[in-house]
Amino acid sequence: MKPDLKQIQVPIENEMAQFELKFRDSMKSKVKLLDHITNYIVKRKGKQMRPMFVFLTAGVCGGINDATHRGAALIELLHTATLVHDDVVDDANYRRGFFSVNALWKNKIAVLVGDYLLSRGLLLSVENGDFDLLKIVSNAVKEMSEGELLQIAKARKLDITEEVYYDIIRQKTASLLASCCAVGASSTQSDEKTIAKMREFGEKVGMAFQIKDDLFDFGDDEIGKPVGIDIKEKKMTLPLIFALQKADWLEKKKIIHLIRNRSEDKKAVNQVISFVKKSGGLDYAKTIMDRYFIEALDILKTFPESAYKTSLEGLVSYTIERKK
Amino acid sequence: MKPDLKQIQVPIENEMAQFELKFRDSMKSKVKLLDHITNYIVKRKGKQMRPMFVFLTAGVCGGINDATHRGAALIELLHTATLVHDDVVDDANYRRGFFSVNALWKNKIAVLVGDYLLSRGLLLSVENGDFDLLKIVSNAVKEMSEGELLQIAKARKLDITEEVYYDIIRQKTASLLASCCAVGASSTQSDEKTIAKMREFGEKVGMAFQIKDDLFDFGDDEIGKPVGIDIKEKKMTLPLIFALQKADWLEKKKIIHLIRNRSEDKKAVNQVISFVKKSGGLDYAKTIMDRYFIEALDILKTFPESAYKTSLEGLVSYTIERKK
Repeated sequence: MKPDLKQIQVPIENEMAQFELKFRDSMKSKVKLLDHITNYIVKRKGKQMRPMFVFLTAGVCGGINDATHRGAALIELLHTATLVHDDVVDDANYRRGFFSVNALWKNKIAVLVGDYLLSRGLLLSVENGDFDLLKIVSNAVKEMSEGELLQIAKARKLDITEEVYYDIIRQKTASLLASCCAVGASSTQSDEKTIAKMREFGEKVGMAFQIKDDLFDFGDDEIGKPVGIDIKEKKMTLPLIFALQKADWLEKKKIIHLIRNRSEDKKAVNQVISFVKKSGGLDYAKTIMDRYFIEALDILKTFPESAYKTSLEGLVSYTIERKK
Repeated sequence: MKPDLKQIQVPIENEMAQFELKFRDSMKSKVKLLDHITNYIVKRKGKQMRPMFVFLTAGVCGGINDATHRGAALIELLHTATLVHDDVVDDANYRRGFFSVNALWKNKIAVLVGDYLLSRGLLLSVENGDFDLLKIVSNAVKEMSEGELLQIAKARKLDITEEVYYDIIRQKTASLLASCCAVGASSTQSDEKTIAKMREFGEKVGMAFQIKDDLFDFGDDEIGKPVGIDIKEKKMTLPLIFALQKADWLEKKKIIHLIRNRSEDKKAVNQVISFVKKSGGLDYAKTIMDRYFIEALDILKTFPESAYKTSLEGLVSYTIERKK
């Protein structure tokens, strides 16, 4: 199936439309400034892949119900909260082609808006007794903040190992997609084994997703994102880690010198990118990504056929074939 | 009873000692950077009035148990998370005589550490099935972030009313103390009416607490905190709101001019402070504070006598008689 988000959404079209309303509604506040900001956030919404994972996994596991809807809203509120906080963390001025909340309203407001969104997600779950969903999601909040902190502590060390890289991306990225799929399964009252299987499926998709994201930084695409940002920030990702592992002593010394002392210089960054390409770093990362992709699809194969399952397979393909 | 924190703590001495260990333990992480930061946070701990409110209200309502302990840890984790985020919000470099987390490790890390602490609180509750406590506390997170945002939107408008001021401090400050007392009561399996009574008690204490805090800014104390910070930041608090309400047209115009255009000038700030004192703004705020204080104690009177109750009365007195 050629991945096309419109096509993928067909079996959950009504659910996604309902979700839009529920999500908007769940952020409403009597504080006008807050309403103003959350309206802005809704306007610049992304592809909403996370709610799609929640609905499709629930569909595969037996059927979408009200708890699935609340789970999707909880996940998207949490995800939005972390994006707003991330932009403070990264000092980012843009998000999805719009100004970031911190750029328009300053850091202080962005931190508070993030906390507010998180609390609305919690309340939605607590008030409806969705404690299983809450457990899954609280764990994701912990993993994500730990993962980001691990990245800050480790990813700029130039001798970072592949293992540590996988730990970081598992916590900071894959844990949320794992939670989406666990929430979807859990909302249908599936047994623990099925929930665990769906969590593992989501984790593998998340790993592939982040490796794809890290590949973009090496211009591994005609149109992709701006190139060399990670190198400029001395953030070590899989293609570079692999290339350095393989390099001989002299080459390694030269590349580390470039990253350490000249990462602000576009020419030096391009030299690093060429080195990674020449060393097979991109191919290696793609191989690992494909392995996660295949393992994810293998897990999915154990579930019965349905339109949901076909769409979910399409969504997985989309995450690794997307152009941005 | 003369308020003395050591004396107040006598009936809950063992509980507070256990709490220390539980709190420290609940923050542990395998990420070293995070452990390093949370150790630092533990070292600069405050008076821990919030856990004291949790334990004492539970004592008054029938007895401290394991759920009370988890409630106290949940509240203190949440409170610590908001303090770490507040320092980002306020661009503060100090907290309790130590450098703030954002000053030592930058905003980005402070935001993540706050999120991490919050998630640990959530997990502690979710894993133990403390859903009633979680509901109370999720609501507090929502109220606090809304209250801070309302303050940002409103408190710098020079024509702010007393009503809006009360709304702000009810949400940003009183909601957490209300939650402490509701959590204490709820942990003992008290009925809804008792929990509601304790919540109201805590809210009134919180209102008095914040009015006291706002009075400090007018140097209403021999040793207190630095004076005139709120005026410098154009933050309108009760003494000033009252004084402006009472002032004639010409005087009002003069004071508003000083706040709007010269609040960076120490002399102008002192003129505003003198005006507030002369207009009886401090006395008025103290009268309102005392009213909340008395109403809080009146609620407490409906509970049976005990060492916990005596200490709780002492703790309430402490909040309005404290010198900093």
